[in-house]
Amino acid sequence: MPDRYEIEKENKVRQLREKARYDKGAVFSVLDAGIVAHVAFVQDGAPVVVPMIYGRENDTVFLHGARKARVIKLLEQTKRACLNVTLLDGIVLARSAFNSSMNYRSVTLFGAPQLVEGKEEKLRAMRIISEHSMPGRWGEVRDSHDREVKMTGVIALKIETASAKISAGLPDDEDEDYAIPIWAGVLPVTTKIGALQDDDRLLPGATASDAVRALQQRKL
Amino acid sequence: MPDRYEIEKENKVRQLREKARYDKGAVFSVLDAGIVAHVAFVQDGAPVVVPMIYGRENDTVFLHGARKARVIKLLEQTKRACLNVTLLDGIVLARSAFNSSMNYRSVTLFGAPQLVEGKEEKLRAMRIISEHSMPGRWGEVRDSHDREVKMTGVIALKIETASAKISAGLPDDEDEDYAIPIWAGVLPVTTKIGALQDDDRLLPGATASDAVRALQQRKL
Repeated sequence: MPDRYEIEKENKVRQLREKARYDKGAVFSVLDAGIVAHVAFVQDGAPVVVPMIYGRENDTVFLHGARKARVIKLLEQTKRACLNVTLLDGIVLARSAFNSSMNYRSVTLFGAPQLVEGKEEKLRAMRIISEHSMPGRWGEVRDSHDREVKMTGVIALKIETASAKISAGLPDDEDEDYAIPIWAGVLPVTTKIGALQDDDRLLPGATASDAVRALQQRKL
Repeated sequence: MPDRYEIEKENKVRQLREKARYDKGAVFSVLDAGIVAHVAFVQDGAPVVVPMIYGRENDTVFLHGARKARVIKLLEQTKRACLNVTLLDGIVLARSAFNSSMNYRSVTLFGAPQLVEGKEEKLRAMRIISEHSMPGRWGEVRDSHDREVKMTGVIALKIETASAKISAGLPDDEDEDYAIPIWAGVLPVTTKIGALQDDDRLLPGATASDAVRALQQRKL
C-alpha cells in the first residue's frame, strides 16, 4: 500500500500549495484528531452537506446514522462522496485584511460510499466509530441489541484520493507593512473537553472510569 | 420579511425532528457563533465540500477566496450551494452505544451563489467577512490595496431555505438501562481563544487593542 495519495484532478490543492500534504500520515493524523466530519453528496443534481461523526480504519472512514435516514439512503445510492474534516487552530491577525487568515488542519477526501451489511460487519464498524470519539466506552456500555444494529445504517467510505492542508505559524505580511505600528500575531483557538457533567439518574457509586477520565484530557 | 424559513423538501429535518428549528433567530445565532463554514457544490456531477470563513448580513452569507481559486470560479458558475456550520458542544455518554451521541448547534442552508462585483460592493462584503471572525480589526489594519480587492473573489449566498438543529442536555437512555451501574453524562466540549501569540516583528509599543482583547474572550 503506497504511503501517499496520487495527486489527481480531484484532490489537487491549487491555492497555497505549500500547505498541501498528500502523505497518509498527515491525512490520517487530521482525521484521527477530529470528531465531526462534513460529508457532501449530490441529491437530484444539487449539493448537500451533512455533519457526521466517524471512525477510521486504514484507508476506510466509517459513518453511521439511522438506517432510514435520508443521509444513509443517499450515501447508499450515490457513487461519490466528499468528506472534509477541519480543525481550527488559530486566528492570524496580520497588518492587512488581505494577509489575515486562519491556522487550521484540514483534510478532504473522496470515495465511493458503500453500505455495510451483516450484523458482525456492522457491529465492527459501529465499534470503530464509537471508539473514535469515545475511546474505551464500547466496552463499558451494554451490548447492542439486534434491533439497534438493524436500525443503524453504516457506510464505509474507502478513501480513493485525499489531501491535507495545514496552516500554522505567524502572519506573513508584505515587507512594507511591517512598518505599520499595530499589534499582529495569532489568537490560538483551542478545543477542549471540560468538567464532567453527571447524568441526573446515576446509580450510587457510578463514577467515571479511567477511559472517561482519559477522554476528558483530549484536545481536538 | 418572515421570521422563519418555510419547511420544504430541501431544508426539512427528518431525523430527531424535535431538535429542528426553522426560525431565523436560531439559524442566525448559530451562523453568528461559528467561524468555519463547510460549503458544498457540484463539480462535473460530483460533490465537493470546502471549509471557508464567512460573514452574514441579514439573509445573506458572504464567502471569499482568491479570485482565481477553483472554489470561487465554481461558486460563480453553480446554481446551487449548500452551507453547513456545526459547533460541537459535548460528547453524550449514555449507558448504551445506541443512545450515546453529541450535543451540537448546527445550521444547514441552501441558496444560489452570486459573484459580487464592483470595488465598493466587494469591500463591503470583505469587511463583513473580516468583522465576523475578527470584530474591530478592519478599522485597525491598513486600507486594502486595489490590487488586493481585484485578487479577491467574493460570493454572496442568499439564504433561500435553512434549518437549524440543536442538541443539548443529558443522555436519553432506555428505561431499563438506568439500572446499569456505569457512569453516564456529558463531556462538554468548549472552544476558546487562548493567550495572544505575538508576531516576532512587532514594533516597540505595538500592543493588542481593546478589539483584539475582546476577541480573546470569544467562545465559539
